[in-house]
Amino acid sequence: MNTIKTAVEDDRITQAIEHNRITQWVIEDAHQRVQAHAHRTPVMRSTTFDRRFDGELFFKCENLQRVGAFKFRGAINAVFQLSAEDLARGVTTHSSGNHAQALSLAAKIAGTRALIVMPKTAPAVKLAAVRGYGAEVILCEPTLEARETTTAQVMEETGAVLIHPYDNHQIIAGQATAAKELIEDSPALDLILIPVGGGGLAAGTALAAHYFSPETEVVAVEPSGADDAYRSLEVGQILPSVSPRTLADGLLSSLGQRTFPILQHRLRSIVTVDDAEIITAMRTLWERMKLVVEPSGAVPFAALTAGKLDITGKRVGIILSGGNIDLDHLPWAS
Amino acid sequence: MNTIKTAVEDDRITQAIEHNRITQWVIEDAHQRVQAHAHRTPVMRSTTFDRRFDGELFFKCENLQRVGAFKFRGAINAVFQLSAEDLARGVTTHSSGNHAQALSLAAKIAGTRALIVMPKTAPAVKLAAVRGYGAEVILCEPTLEARETTTAQVMEETGAVLIHPYDNHQIIAGQATAAKELIEDSPALDLILIPVGGGGLAAGTALAAHYFSPETEVVAVEPSGADDAYRSLEVGQILPSVSPRTLADGLLSSLGQRTFPILQHRLRSIVTVDDAEIITAMRTLWERMKLVVEPSGAVPFAALTAGKLDITGKRVGIILSGGNIDLDHLPWAS
Repeated sequence: MNTIKTAVEDDRITQAIEHNRITQWVIEDAHQRVQAHAHRTPVMRSTTFDRRFDGELFFKCENLQRVGAFKFRGAINAVFQLSAEDLARGVTTHSSGNHAQALSLAAKIAGTRALIVMPKTAPAVKLAAVRGYGAEVILCEPTLEARETTTAQVMEETGAVLIHPYDNHQIIAGQATAAKELIEDSPALDLILIPVGGGGLAAGTALAAHYFSPETEVVAVEPSGADDAYRSLEVGQILPSVSPRTLADGLLSSLGQRTFPILQHRLRSIVTVDDAEIITAMRTLWERMKLVVEPSGAVPFAALTAGKLDITGKRVGIILSGGNIDLDHLPWAS
Repeated sequence: MNTIKTAVEDDRITQAIEHNRITQWVIEDAHQRVQAHAHRTPVMRSTTFDRRFDGELFFKCENLQRVGAFKFRGAINAVFQLSAEDLARGVTTHSSGNHAQALSLAAKIAGTRALIVMPKTAPAVKLAAVRGYGAEVILCEPTLEARETTTAQVMEETGAVLIHPYDNHQIIAGQATAAKELIEDSPALDLILIPVGGGGLAAGTALAAHYFSPETEVVAVEPSGADDAYRSLEVGQILPSVSPRTLADGLLSSLGQRTFPILQHRLRSIVTVDDAEIITAMRTLWERMKLVVEPSGAVPFAALTAGKLDITGKRVGIILSGGNIDLDHLPWAS
């Protein structure tokens, strides 16, 4: 666990957060929008785990959310704030993960088109899932440059609005609603654990705790193979991952301009776990809680199973962020 | 789907049911006992499945029950009705499945010993699970004869009370509480689907529907490789399976003297599904509902995914009976 460097730059951070303008009201407003279309996912308990970790655990099951991940919350919040003019043009993003499916379904519900830029190399099952929600897929070369160029081209040709997967105020406010519900359903939490990739869920959770349960601390957990948040928060500036490698494929992104200052100011600390630890945590969740959780979704729990965080006597919320995984390629199959 | 032959022997059946004496009050009483120790498992929905099958589905998640299966309900109900004298001697059964674990935990909670007779060939993980609940395991040769002889010997030597996995009134009344909760949480069901092996859950569900929601019909679903219930109900007498073969290893048992007449009188019909259909149903549940369900637990849903039952416009409860499966040997891995 590291110490987050905030003291020296407090003014700049406060300004940056101010600039974000994600107030309590913004999150409450997002929740109204999200509630109309998303599931209020259950909070599950486990006597076995409570005994094992000598605390009280509250698992917020976003793997049971529509499209199988919390990403649907942010997508709904962003799409339903578009103007009629923008809705007529459609939305776009480049993603081969849960955000692509979330944006596709949100667009379908809002009655607009979604143009999703995906690498040629994306698995057929992911292409099918996105198309299944009625989105149009635009294939490109599997490089970041090609994805960005292709997306820019799509925007220019169609006028579609870019919905960034995390570096977007409305996305962050939407993701915050998962923690808001968790806090409402499981009061007086000492701690909430979330995974961190680009930081949308992490920033939203940190803000939700700050507004709705100021005593609750938020700790992010990150794969050691993609530890840009850990390094960035330690030195106090964004240090993007160069070639991140982890099984937790939902957490490969690096922090953005909007997520970084929120985390810097509002996160208690950050813990890293390696892939073997993530696999153990994931398998333990499947075996004991009977829940299909994807590797990225098992990352926060891995901090406990790997013994990286002591929660003795504490009430701890854990967001199980998603459950989308290819059942033909499970990480424990050799 | 077959027609259950009841008309010709109605008097005898009524007598047999009367003899069972599992009245509404017996199930209500069981529920008080069960509620004190078991989870009230959630009922989950799926918009995707509702649309696909053009009905309303209500999944009662007994895979999230303690020990991972509904079997805990019957075990609690039986063990907590033992006399102080019996409790001093302990309980026994022969099983390598969910009943063994359920009885072990129920005995532990009641403060008595459990002596579980298991075949030498049982997987190490199952032995470990039973021992993990504090039970003593007695190994025997892997034949039905050896299991029965060994159990009789255990009873003689220790005075332990045999708790049969399904052919036992208290077990049937305990299993009935799953459907009772489902009916309370999801009113006005047209249909409840359950798997059938020895018939404990099936008989309990049929009685619960009869008492608590008389308009609700109960349909059992059985693996075609272990279709003794289908055949027995068709001809009107118990025809045990000779060498049952199915992936749904919780459903290998044949109907018993106590379960058969209840099913004969109270079940609407019975449907069979083959192993390939069970695998498809199970995988669909994992992928779409993010729930780990064992093959036996996916059997009722297989009647829908295999197109063997039309539920158009109906409200249908489905009991997902258990979630215990070896993640190293999933049936779709070749």
